Amino acid sequence: MKKLLLLGAGRSASVLVDYLLRHAALEGWQVAIGDVSVEHLPLAVRQNPVVRAFAVDVLDEAQREAEIARADVVISLLPALFHPLVAQSCLAMGKHLVTASYVPEEIKAMHAEAQAKGLTLLMECGLDPGIDHMSAMKIIHHIQNQGGKITSFKSFTGGLMAPESDTNPWHYKFTWNPRNVVLAGQGTAMYMEEGTYKYIPYPQLFRRTETFMIDGFGAFDGYANRNSLAYRAPYGLEDIPTMLRGTLRRPGYCQAWNVLVQLGLTDDTYHLEMTEGMTYRQLVESFLPAARQEEGDLRGRVAHYVGIPPEAPELDLVEWTGLFSDLPIALAQATPAQALEKLLTQKWKLSPGDKDMIVMLHLFEYELAGQRHQLSSSLVVLGEDEVHTAMAKTVGLPVGIAARLLMQGKLNVTGVVVPLQPEIYEPILDELEQYGINFTEKTEF
Amino acid sequence: MKKLLLLGAGRSASVLVDYLLRHAALEGWQVAIGDVSVEHLPLAVRQNPVVRAFAVDVLDEAQREAEIARADVVISLLPALFHPLVAQSCLAMGKHLVTASYVPEEIKAMHAEAQAKGLTLLMECGLDPGIDHMSAMKIIHHIQNQGGKITSFKSFTGGLMAPESDTNPWHYKFTWNPRNVVLAGQGTAMYMEEGTYKYIPYPQLFRRTETFMIDGFGAFDGYANRNSLAYRAPYGLEDIPTMLRGTLRRPGYCQAWNVLVQLGLTDDTYHLEMTEGMTYRQLVESFLPAARQEEGDLRGRVAHYVGIPPEAPELDLVEWTGLFSDLPIALAQATPAQALEKLLTQKWKLSPGDKDMIVMLHLFEYELAGQRHQLSSSLVVLGEDEVHTAMAKTVGLPVGIAARLLMQGKLNVTGVVVPLQPEIYEPILDELEQYGINFTEKTEF
Repeated sequence: MKKLLLLGAGRSASVLVDYLLRHAALEGWQVAIGDVSVEHLPLAVRQNPVVRAFAVDVLDEAQREAEIARADVVISLLPALFHPLVAQSCLAMGKHLVTASYVPEEIKAMHAEAQAKGLTLLMECGLDPGIDHMSAMKIIHHIQNQGGKITSFKSFTGGLMAPESDTNPWHYKFTWNPRNVVLAGQGTAMYMEEGTYKYIPYPQLFRRTETFMIDGFGAFDGYANRNSLAYRAPYGLEDIPTMLRGTLRRPGYCQAWNVLVQLGLTDDTYHLEMTEGMTYRQLVESFLPAARQEEGDLRGRVAHYVGIPPEAPELDLVEWTGLFSDLPIALAQATPAQALEKLLTQKWKLSPGDKDMIVMLHLFEYELAGQRHQLSSSLVVLGEDEVHTAMAKTVGLPVGIAARLLMQGKLNVTGVVVPLQPEIYEPILDELEQYGINFTEKTEF
Repeated sequence: MKKLLLLGAGRSASVLVDYLLRHAALEGWQVAIGDVSVEHLPLAVRQNPVVRAFAVDVLDEAQREAEIARADVVISLLPALFHPLVAQSCLAMGKHLVTASYVPEEIKAMHAEAQAKGLTLLMECGLDPGIDHMSAMKIIHHIQNQGGKITSFKSFTGGLMAPESDTNPWHYKFTWNPRNVVLAGQGTAMYMEEGTYKYIPYPQLFRRTETFMIDGFGAFDGYANRNSLAYRAPYGLEDIPTMLRGTLRRPGYCQAWNVLVQLGLTDDTYHLEMTEGMTYRQLVESFLPAARQEEGDLRGRVAHYVGIPPEAPELDLVEWTGLFSDLPIALAQATPAQALEKLLTQKWKLSPGDKDMIVMLHLFEYELAGQRHQLSSSLVVLGEDEVHTAMAKTVGLPVGIAARLLMQGKLNVTGVVVPLQPEIYEPILDELEQYGINFTEKTEF
């Protein structure tokens, strides 16, 4: 009997677990599920006869290797920092691995050994990275196979709220690690535009957005991700004049977030003094010069400081968070980013029944037979409920499909790989369509 | 015969060396001068009968300890990172030490041992830190001894050009480590205003200046240093409502520097692509969004990007540097800050005969017998020529005086100390007055 091991089964694993159990029943697999604790797993999962759920300490080498040794294919949805350990054990035990995380250097270095052993260490096979690669490569290969030359490629992804659950002025709630959202974009974004390397320092990032429309879903603002250039070579686009990868938010978000950035509230590099007894209003005060009569109340002073009118709509969003209120921070020795995260965690919390939404957009410009062409390809996935979220679907299904293909011996690409090749992305994208994960193409934008 | 050892004798040591040789002749000392090489020392110094000049490798423990063992007092003007090594050897050999650099943690930890051995490790005894501490403490102690309570203390220092050598639109030339000038202010400035902790993120720093007038020398803009609060306790000002330490520039400098900061040109955290073949105009282009017709030329586009009119005077300063020109960068893999430093090193170079100027300004507010008072104390020191600079005088003389007092057994404070006590600052400030280093006090500002 073939055996599959899933390491890490938090909330975002719900759709993956359902997928694995459905196929386990059909194909006669056993599924071992290891997590820090397994009490949070639904009874229907824990009591499923094909499942063996167990508490795992991934740092316990003996347990890790023993469990991996019993499996045919390993899936890891653990925090990314544990993947080198898991991959090392997979190599040692001769097992395939699938993850949804970026390839760290330590795993890149395992390529030759994995190839020599006939093993597949398939990384970046979730949503972003994952579906973004696969859907883009399908179009890139299609254009190139026709003899076309791609001159511009911009690609954006956002984890947002479905229209019916989009109930606050930021049009945003946390469906992902709040800390990562607060720190998003720090460093310098780097991309390529018309043959020129472009750099956006963090304080300018949320001002330099582009707006896109998606039929039936309205407008989205995109801001640049940190490094848009690393995928030029892997995508076969070494000489492309324009390439940008970015993140989508609803209009209004970036302008309001920019106010927080300008104030200094997203900084995580130092600890504030005396935050334990401070209110959020006092926190904002700490980032402003001394009060001047003519600037009015705190909102007016913030407006003056960041150079916008006091009635600017982005300040409505900032005020809505409670930053100008007497709410206590109640954190000792917080960094500005920690204090902000605590406030937003309360305000951007999902309500029962909330549905999320994943949006992905690729924009291509290319030349074919002397003609210039445009092509956009967009994906919108809506969550079904707070368990079967769009995030859980779009991360879990490609991982699950890849694992199934490996279990069935249908994925014959060895080494440390990312789903950029037709042999990998075609069967995965085909099956994703059955789950409603399909892209809409348009030839103009 | 008593012996003094000077480690590090670069250009800024000129006035110190003269001072030491004058006193060596009077008091019958020998002066050993060790530097990486000693060819740059004037013949009159090298051939002076009381001098023994030698090449030293401070990382060579045997040589370091042998030289220190022969001395009674050691002065180090070496780069600050070597001071822990030198101080450790002074402790081991039982010798006093004087430096003009901040106390690092490693040296702070030597306090008890130095005290036990009856040794003085006198740090922060140059200009800034040094004269700033001494002159401020003299006033603080005077006010406190009268029963006054200090409510506000702001202190600024600047290394600038004497009016006759102030010949460029920035009113600035490099008289100090260019790299430190380019990176100045990075991190978050922290100060206290009316009882509130205040934080200034780097992108706001050069906008948040205060302007001061000094009789006979005109206007200066001050911006906040990184940590203004660390000296509250050492200065005996634990509960002071307002405290700020900062740096002085001539008006216009900070506004123009802010343009460079907003563009991202002072960033030293990553390497740009392909800088070897780039011009400065192309570098600026890399930090701007794609060109739009209506924004005009490069200057107009920069103006639009940073939100100022194209005719704004700060852009005259930026343009003067050559940043908008076709000058090649000619550096491989430069960081933005390295490319900028290279440009400014050419433009802000001292000309033969140029005279520098040190400006220091203390502003106090205090209450005494129910009355509120103001007191300003300012110092302006002009360089005599490009060797006997104001910087060399104001760094070298307090170090030299302190070393003389130690040689004469007149400085009976042991341990790791900073010149905050009357026993140290009084004789030093008194003697500095003989060299024209004296403060002008005013009771209103």
